[in-house]
Amino acid sequence: MNADWDVSSLLEGMVRDLRPRVDPEQTAMIGIFTGGVWVAQALHHALGLNTALGRLDISFYRDDFSQIGLHPQVRASDIPFDVNGRSIILVDDVLYTGRTIRAALNEIFDYGRPASVLLAVLVDRGGHELPVSADIAALRLNGATGGQIKLRGPDPLRLEWLAAAPGSVA
Amino acid sequence: MNADWDVSSLLEGMVRDLRPRVDPEQTAMIGIFTGGVWVAQALHHALGLNTALGRLDISFYRDDFSQIGLHPQVRASDIPFDVNGRSIILVDDVLYTGRTIRAALNEIFDYGRPASVLLAVLVDRGGHELPVSADIAALRLNGATGGQIKLRGPDPLRLEWLAAAPGSVA
Repeated sequence: MNADWDVSSLLEGMVRDLRPRVDPEQTAMIGIFTGGVWVAQALHHALGLNTALGRLDISFYRDDFSQIGLHPQVRASDIPFDVNGRSIILVDDVLYTGRTIRAALNEIFDYGRPASVLLAVLVDRGGHELPVSADIAALRLNGATGGQIKLRGPDPLRLEWLAAAPGSVA
Repeated sequence: MNADWDVSSLLEGMVRDLRPRVDPEQTAMIGIFTGGVWVAQALHHALGLNTALGRLDISFYRDDFSQIGLHPQVRASDIPFDVNGRSIILVDDVLYTGRTIRAALNEIFDYGRPASVLLAVLVDRGGHELPVSADIAALRLNGATGGQIKLRGPDPLRLEWLAAAPGSVA
């Protein structure tokens, strides 16, 4: 089974929810590599934020680094603004266990001490393993949903839900 | 102004919410020093957990360490079980900015990689500055609530709300 969502409608919903919580002169935005950066680029443009978009690569911070046998390419994170005292919107494509977000927060705090970090995701699929929550989510799914949800892109952005095969364990 | 809540009723509510999410043989619990340890002791006893209660002291992990001029006493954290693969309930008295919880998660991950960490608090007072959320909260207040909320104890436990003085800025 396979379902596609209309990503541009989802992004419009996020922009609507974010606008009252954003000050275009002050608020900064950071996308998590890869899918989160694509989503962040769209939001950053639509919201007209003045501060250049940041990018985080958390491959090296993952706590399951050794378990999943990652061979990360070296991609430097890029935070082109002073994090200290800043209101930051952290953007990812899919929120699942919360481990990526914990890693991303730690990397942000390596740069400085923000005033606040708000989390905006395209999909919150539930099943969190850590007490992490999305402030803004275009789509909230039940934690029991099996299969894989993946954002493909960058042009066009396409959100794919690959449901678990019958008889397989999600 | 000053209001007191009935802490034992609040604890009963937490036990009721936690019971279906707990396996007394496997689930472990960690309280955050000081108030979180008091709450955790009550929950740990009522839920009949077999694994000895853990205790975290996050004074040294606070990101505002230098700002608030803490002179922490040296109190060792004590996690008397293997964190790896464990389902853990993290307990604090009051959830406010979320910074203490971020620090507590980092300290837990210094010990190992838990299967999950569920956050249970007596009071979630809102006003979070990080995307941290309580899975279980006996009392959820509006983020705009001013003043100070403090758990006094250990015997009896008393939750004090010291509202901001008129004219003062919360």
